[in-house]
Amino acid sequence: MRNVRLQIAYDGSRFYGWQRQDGFVSVQESLEDAFACLIGERVSVQGSGRTDTGVHALRQVANVHVQTALTDDRLRHGLNAHLPESVVVRRLETCADAFHARFSAIGKRYVYVATTTRFKPAFGSQYTTWERSALDFDAMRSAARDLLGTHDFRGLCSTGSKPTTTIRTIRGLRWLARRERLAFVIEADGFLYNMVRAIAGTLFDIGRGRLATSCIRDVLESGDRGAAGPTAPPAGLYLLRVRYAEPTFAGPDPGPKGSPGVFQL
Amino acid sequence: MRNVRLQIAYDGSRFYGWQRQDGFVSVQESLEDAFACLIGERVSVQGSGRTDTGVHALRQVANVHVQTALTDDRLRHGLNAHLPESVVVRRLETCADAFHARFSAIGKRYVYVATTTRFKPAFGSQYTTWERSALDFDAMRSAARDLLGTHDFRGLCSTGSKPTTTIRTIRGLRWLARRERLAFVIEADGFLYNMVRAIAGTLFDIGRGRLATSCIRDVLESGDRGAAGPTAPPAGLYLLRVRYAEPTFAGPDPGPKGSPGVFQL
Repeated sequence: MRNVRLQIAYDGSRFYGWQRQDGFVSVQESLEDAFACLIGERVSVQGSGRTDTGVHALRQVANVHVQTALTDDRLRHGLNAHLPESVVVRRLETCADAFHARFSAIGKRYVYVATTTRFKPAFGSQYTTWERSALDFDAMRSAARDLLGTHDFRGLCSTGSKPTTTIRTIRGLRWLARRERLAFVIEADGFLYNMVRAIAGTLFDIGRGRLATSCIRDVLESGDRGAAGPTAPPAGLYLLRVRYAEPTFAGPDPGPKGSPGVFQL
Repeated sequence: MRNVRLQIAYDGSRFYGWQRQDGFVSVQESLEDAFACLIGERVSVQGSGRTDTGVHALRQVANVHVQTALTDDRLRHGLNAHLPESVVVRRLETCADAFHARFSAIGKRYVYVATTTRFKPAFGSQYTTWERSALDFDAMRSAARDLLGTHDFRGLCSTGSKPTTTIRTIRGLRWLARRERLAFVIEADGFLYNMVRAIAGTLFDIGRGRLATSCIRDVLESGDRGAAGPTAPPAGLYLLRVRYAEPTFAGPDPGPKGSPGVFQL
């Protein structure tokens, strides 16, 4: 059996999340269906993690054990021919047997994108969250710095999964602003369920003046989810990349990199 | 009764076209429902023309006769509060009784947007058409010049409506290109059914080298729809503006002008 890893982009607004669920179209099942068409048998595609309904990915990583004589290139082209629009296998390569998209991952990077216009835009509500109010960008940036480093994030996630630990390390945070678009890129060794969206919702409430700039620091100390902001909508969230100890997907990036008309990411 | 005209933006991918149809969500019906919520009675909203399923509008114009004491501003805000996302009333003003969005129109401007990447994009297929092949832009531009002026366009439209005449005057044509995006803006005294999409499909086939550069000229002479290219997909098409003899919607443009991440239009 060959272990094959894939780098996948998908438009989360077209799927009921990553994970296979009876009666709902998921990205995982779309990939497994495409494999079945191509190699004639059902396989199990393992993602680096789930994404919820409406959450997008620019470079999700998955791996799958397959029995096929097709070259990597043929496999990729064949999958893309069988996949619905809105999922694209960007890269595909045969990898070491031991590689596991989820358990081998040592970090993830997400971006959360908001549009700040007084006027509700008719287009693209599935690709960004919309903020009518002017946001205090300086307060948000200042508050976000408290996220950096190792903390207990139980006050900035949703219940519903039972992680062994709620301690995570935020390794990087970067802000982007262009015209009426605002985004932050966040990288950690891993994220709890809804953690980026809880952080986004809290930062936006700080930007709106509804929460104090000290809120992030306070919630990290108290672990009180109720003291933080709401879970921000999924439409603004993109999985940007998954990091592994070994180098993955060597060579130049193969194509349209950016989320739609937002930033080149 | 007050005659009120509206300037409306909508994401055509969320509707089964402009026109009210039993059992399908249309822009017209959404507007009429919003009026019903707001002023408590059913009204008939007249658009400048229909747009098909998937075709977008940045500045569609409509008018409606209503009995209400609400100011123009209140009406606009109220409608936007009741409308689904993906339709926005950008401007609204009380106008002369004689104004009719369709019969008073003296011109229309559309833009057709294509994305030319080797790699299928996962995002935004509802907002642009995708072209894998490299297009011969010079051939397309040169062929398009034959469209200018007054011609019989029966070879560049779809049957299905019975216009009194198939003669139209193309007043302007402009190309836009940025990164992997290509678009043309076309203005005429009016357009036949599917005319812009037939023109787009023909120009793209010229760009692909499947049709000769002289094809537009030949089809305008022969009126032979079969000699032209296919009807291009609706996703790339945006109604940009409707022109009237009298000035409409004075004052500065109120908000996000561009189609999503494409061009500022």
